Amino acid sequence: MNCSIAQALEMVGEWWTFLILREALLGVRRFDDFQAHLGISRNVLTQRLESLVDDGILKRVQYENRPPRYEYRLTDKGRALWPVLNALREWGDEWILGLEKAPVVLVHDRCGHECHASQRCSHCGDELQPREMHFEPGPGAPADPPSTTRPSRTKDKIPT
Amino acid sequence: MNCSIAQALEMVGEWWTFLILREALLGVRRFDDFQAHLGISRNVLTQRLESLVDDGILKRVQYENRPPRYEYRLTDKGRALWPVLNALREWGDEWILGLEKAPVVLVHDRCGHECHASQRCSHCGDELQPREMHFEPGPGAPADPPSTTRPSRTKDKIPT
Repeated sequence: MNCSIAQALEMVGEWWTFLILREALLGVRRFDDFQAHLGISRNVLTQRLESLVDDGILKRVQYENRPPRYEYRLTDKGRALWPVLNALREWGDEWILGLEKAPVVLVHDRCGHECHASQRCSHCGDELQPREMHFEPGPGAPADPPSTTRPSRTKDKIPT
Repeated sequence: MNCSIAQALEMVGEWWTFLILREALLGVRRFDDFQAHLGISRNVLTQRLESLVDDGILKRVQYENRPPRYEYRLTDKGRALWPVLNALREWGDEWILGLEKAPVVLVHDRCGHECHASQRCSHCGDELQPREMHFEPGPGAPADPPSTTRPSRTKDKIPT
């Protein structure tokens, strides 16, 4: 499927994978710590960590020689997933738990204040609203998309 | 698990669910269109749509009387998921497909320019960098978290 959402989900679109990434983004690196925090079976954890290493999201790094011991560190590609996880956390806080029950809050070190990630236009800086944006074919769009396969999309406008 | 990421994933953390939401955010509303766009089995699609309605992410609305026909529209709660899907798309474009192969680009109607969603601090407006933020216990944090269960988290700092 020529869609980066679908391809991204092939890498990270699995419950445990998201939770492993959450722990990694919070600083967890060692197998036993992932296992203790997540209560995940060692088999499943081994598979998921290997898959994340294969996909270049984590790297396995030796941190001790005798005996040889390894830990899992985020790569740049892995760390770049923070807006996905953070957006999921913010949505869950607002729409499931309720903001008054948020277990953690984000603090911006530079200004020292509690904050959320405001989604702003990278060109003009205004806050992005779903009703004020749309998608257009990108550089990787098929040259001549068959219009019949997309009958009812309203010009790929995010619906109101 | 007292974590909004885990709870959010219970609602949307499934490959097909994300892709159904992608289509819904692009304006798809009708069963047959979801089915045609996704190539998903009608059984699986029925289950996923029902689950999204149960969770208050989609609402089922009658749009024709004779015969009675229904479509699926995003609720406010569902539309609020756009930053999650968009962040996943942007990550996939940058780290999997490559930006030069992006199938779609986001255009901000107010300024008319192609853009991405810049993650900015809601307090000071600066761009958020993983190395310049950390998490602190929120209003819903356990009163006295057992420190022994989190041995190696580096103060919940997003790791460098």
